Amino acid sequence: MRVALDAMGGDFAPAPIVAGACEAVADLPELTVCLVGDQAQIEAELAKAPAAPRDRLPIVHASQVIGMEDKPVEALRKKRDNSISKCWGLMASGQVDAVVSAGNTGAMVASALFNAKMFLPGVRRPGIAAIFPSHQGPIVIIDVGANMNAKAEDLYQYGIMGSIYAEEILGVPEARIGLLNVGTEDEKGNELTKSTFETYQSSPWASRFVGNVEGRDIYNGDVRVVICDGFVGNVLLKAGEGAVEFLFSQLKTELARLLPELPGDAGQKIIAGLKDLKSRFEYEEFGGAPLLGIRGACIICHGASGSRAIKNALRVAEKMASERLRDRIVEQLGGAAPLST
Amino acid sequence: MRVALDAMGGDFAPAPIVAGACEAVADLPELTVCLVGDQAQIEAELAKAPAAPRDRLPIVHASQVIGMEDKPVEALRKKRDNSISKCWGLMASGQVDAVVSAGNTGAMVASALFNAKMFLPGVRRPGIAAIFPSHQGPIVIIDVGANMNAKAEDLYQYGIMGSIYAEEILGVPEARIGLLNVGTEDEKGNELTKSTFETYQSSPWASRFVGNVEGRDIYNGDVRVVICDGFVGNVLLKAGEGAVEFLFSQLKTELARLLPELPGDAGQKIIAGLKDLKSRFEYEEFGGAPLLGIRGACIICHGASGSRAIKNALRVAEKMASERLRDRIVEQLGGAAPLST
Repeated sequence: MRVALDAMGGDFAPAPIVAGACEAVADLPELTVCLVGDQAQIEAELAKAPAAPRDRLPIVHASQVIGMEDKPVEALRKKRDNSISKCWGLMASGQVDAVVSAGNTGAMVASALFNAKMFLPGVRRPGIAAIFPSHQGPIVIIDVGANMNAKAEDLYQYGIMGSIYAEEILGVPEARIGLLNVGTEDEKGNELTKSTFETYQSSPWASRFVGNVEGRDIYNGDVRVVICDGFVGNVLLKAGEGAVEFLFSQLKTELARLLPELPGDAGQKIIAGLKDLKSRFEYEEFGGAPLLGIRGACIICHGASGSRAIKNALRVAEKMASERLRDRIVEQLGGAAPLST
Repeated sequence: MRVALDAMGGDFAPAPIVAGACEAVADLPELTVCLVGDQAQIEAELAKAPAAPRDRLPIVHASQVIGMEDKPVEALRKKRDNSISKCWGLMASGQVDAVVSAGNTGAMVASALFNAKMFLPGVRRPGIAAIFPSHQGPIVIIDVGANMNAKAEDLYQYGIMGSIYAEEILGVPEARIGLLNVGTEDEKGNELTKSTFETYQSSPWASRFVGNVEGRDIYNGDVRVVICDGFVGNVLLKAGEGAVEFLFSQLKTELARLLPELPGDAGQKIIAGLKDLKSRFEYEEFGGAPLLGIRGACIICHGASGSRAIKNALRVAEKMASERLRDRIVEQLGGAAPLST
């Protein structure tokens, strides 16, 4: 299995990106990671990991980098030799089975959407799935930013792709689908939610569709796939991130006030416990957000990803590319025979 | 100052609602609270507070109750003698200056929107403002559920009303306005955000408008007013609530694991500290969400409101009704001379 990794993408690239690749190939004997980016910088990082199996860490040079703040479409046009486009180029030509990047999300998505030949047969628009925690394990929220003007048919497809992803990759059997809405009654919401509701009810997936769910229900885990348009999903994702950060900062202040009163190493234990808890709310464990509906696998990592997140993203990308995910999506949406892999 | 309080609205009504009213009139000597609902039940609750000044706690009987799960429009039509409609009736006839309810939000909003004569001059659609915490103090998010099909002009008005509310009620000078979006670049988002952005830039309020803000920026407090359509705002509000609940439940589990190892009363101190922190994330402090753009004051409380939340809502409602809030909104939106109060 070969994965193209954007070595230049991320707030702290290339150091934690290359380090994550080294860790991943050490753990996963079938994995080859093509490190895409500035050859000299990548070599310098690889030199820090002399034990890494270099034969499974080839470098593909790209002379340009799309920055985290660059405007995606403009940057893709002006910087033709950028590492993100090069990753997708390797995928389009069949040299890799997956693409992973912690770089500019807009550029990652735009690169994929520009080339409709990359879409799986029958897929209207690929969608980004975020993996959230819940009381019953990980849940899929789709779309969190690929599609700002979604139609009911897009949301319908997101639910199916998300449900198949939950089954194949997260191990959730018969993952049920909920439509994110402002109330649970059938007739709630805006034009998009009303027509998505109707689309599901008269579809072969009606039995998997539980109807409307509210924001506060997400964390119950009663549905393992929550569908919404990319604008709402993106706001939800980022606001959730902001809320968790804010809450932990307040918690830190509160504990700092209490800690001097605590005897012995009690304070240290609590701080260690909190750090562990916080990491569970971060992207590290699931590696990042899969882009669903394309021919290969793709994981979009958080800009702040450390080596552990990158390693996990590579692990998930390998799983996404090798499992039955693609065939099942095509079977449901393409109306055609499964692709041979 | 007279406020109509829906004594029957809320998950635990009427007990905490009547108790909150008793506490409020004890604290605020100018306040009269009309308790609207089932006379016998209200009398029974008042009997538990013999010291309460009954002359400032008149009862207005209503024989019907709209339940939390009732469909708003249908319930308003079928239950003509319900407590929510009666509260609005008292406001429409000038017998009270404000309405407060912890009952069915949809019915509260629909009652207000049904009667365009209740709108302040120049206001296109009233909006619900939620008060969120931030690193720099309370912020206003508007709209969180009154308007599912908002236009750019609606969002423009929400920003102005929210900014005036932040100044007059929350004490934030020159509260700046941000447009909730999926990125901070000017051209980001969907049709609504793009046209709202343009509306602001060519408006007298351009200097207060900072442009697009992302979900994760909300908690910085750099802008004190965040505008969005009612669908997005409602999802944001409820998902935030769900995330905080989920996080605290995880925290509780984590601490339960650590507590046996802590000596003395350290564990108790931490639990007390956490409870205090959690309450700051709840609606109690600000009492509830003001409905902005109507002739009187209106506070919509959380269904789970306890007596403290109701008391605070009554305090805020008194402030909203008596201060310059209304005049300033009309001055900005009505294009007419301020209403005499």
